[in-house]
Amino acid sequence: MSLTRVNTRNQFKGTVISILRGDVMSEVEIETSSGVIGAVITTSSVKRLGLQVGDSALALFKAADVLVAKLDE
Amino acid sequence: MSLTRVNTRNQFKGTVISILRGDVMSEVEIETSSGVIGAVITTSSVKRLGLQVGDSALALFKAADVLVAKLDE
Amino acid sequence: MSLTRVNTRNQFKGTVISILRGDVMSEVEIETSSGVIGAVITTSSVKRLGLQVGDSALALFKAADVLVAKLDE
Amino acid sequence: MSLTRVNTRNQFKGTVISILRGDVMSEVEIETSSGVIGAVITTSSVKRLGLQVGDSALALFKAADVLVAKLDE
Amino acid sequence: MSLTRVNTRNQFKGTVISILRGDVMSEVEIETSSGVIGAVITTSSVKRLGLQVGDSALALFKAADVLVAKLDE
Amino acid sequence: MSLTRVNTRNQFKGTVISILRGDVMSEVEIETSSGVIGAVITTSSVKRLGLQVGDSALALFKAADVLVAKLDE
Repeated sequence: MSLTRVNTRNQFKGTVISILRGDVMSEVEIETSSGVIGAVITTSSVKRLGLQVGDSALALFKAADVLVAKLDE
Repeated sequence: MSLTRVNTRNQFKGTVISILRGDVMSEVEIETSSGVIGAVITTSSVKRLGLQVGDSALALFKAADVLVAKLDE
Repeated sequence: MSLTRVNTRNQFKGTVISILRGDVMSEVEIETSSGVIGAVITTSSVKRLGLQVGDSALALFKAADVLVAKLDE
Repeated sequence: MSLTRVNTRNQFKGTVISILRGDVMSEVEIETSSGVIGAVITTSSVKRLGLQVGDSALALFKAADVLVAKLDE
Repeated sequence: MSLTRVNTRNQFKGTVISILRGDVMSEVEIETSSGVIGAVITTSSVKRLGLQVGDSALALFKAADVLVAKLDE
Repeated sequence: MSLTRVNTRNQFKGTVISILRGDVMSEVEIETSSGVIGAVITTSSVKRLGLQVGDSALALFKAADVLVAKLDE
């Protein structure tokens, strides 16, 4: 499943495997088929979404936010 | 391989499968084990890196740039 | 309407009033009840979404991307 | 009033209606004519600006940071 | 000079030494005392600001957008 | 020294002069030849990198994240 209406194609589906709740910001780890993606969102968003470990979730990010490093063969 | 010294853990290795060169910005697609990641970087960066289709590359992004959507089971 | 499952509360609904299509990036203007919001997304996203002037659209952005300037009374 | 010299047109004036001060980051809510915009800035910035509930403030963000979702009619 | 009212301390003053105008986005180089900072802004912003080579300008960015790499001694 | 393989040219070398460790996010100050750059990264990244005051470090940011303000002569 994906949010097809949102412009970015950078959408990775996975499962929330940890939520570190801070006073203002929380760190959320989403395990996808290609590895863990870390996200930092507000703790108020975690509460509003009712986000919990075990939830299915989508990690989205804009192409403009991605850096590219060239690797040696 | 990864840039272990860079703070973000969000690093996905893959192969450059397309580069759409624009006048100022270029869209780069990196095929990783978990799907294609799109990146937008300056065309001057593409030239400076000598980035070409077929190159091994790393896509990096900060956790703060990731949005989270909760999915229904 | 809003994407209630997405973490950010910064969601503004409006109507697409202009799309400036560039070779790689496009500038989209969304007229909301509180003014025009400008967005820059890839032209490939504009095509994939089939986005056109007159469409209803949502502008979303993360709280971490907002700068705050204090104004004099 | 706006910061006309800054490149982005995405500038929304409003009033600070809440500040949640965390140890490092703070969440600031600015009520504008079109709804509340949430911003996350460093707590050190909140102190440096002397930002308080009731202050007039401007929320700014770059067009490149805005995602667009197409809505169904 | 700085925009003291804006929250970020990451403000670097310099001189615009080049503007590469694209159809939608433009790349602006600002020479500061510590090196050249590259910025990508919309071409419509370049026009609106009347930005030209030789202008004094300020490059601003949020602390949340900065990545940190540890260097070996 | 620089990470020549990473796309952005916005790389500033310096020395870590302070780390404010929060529960989830940490504020890192890097003194460069042109002034202090503030970065906000996750506290887990600070730990993983073993980042300490006195370390040599590189601050990197994308051109797309830079705002430009025109200054009066």
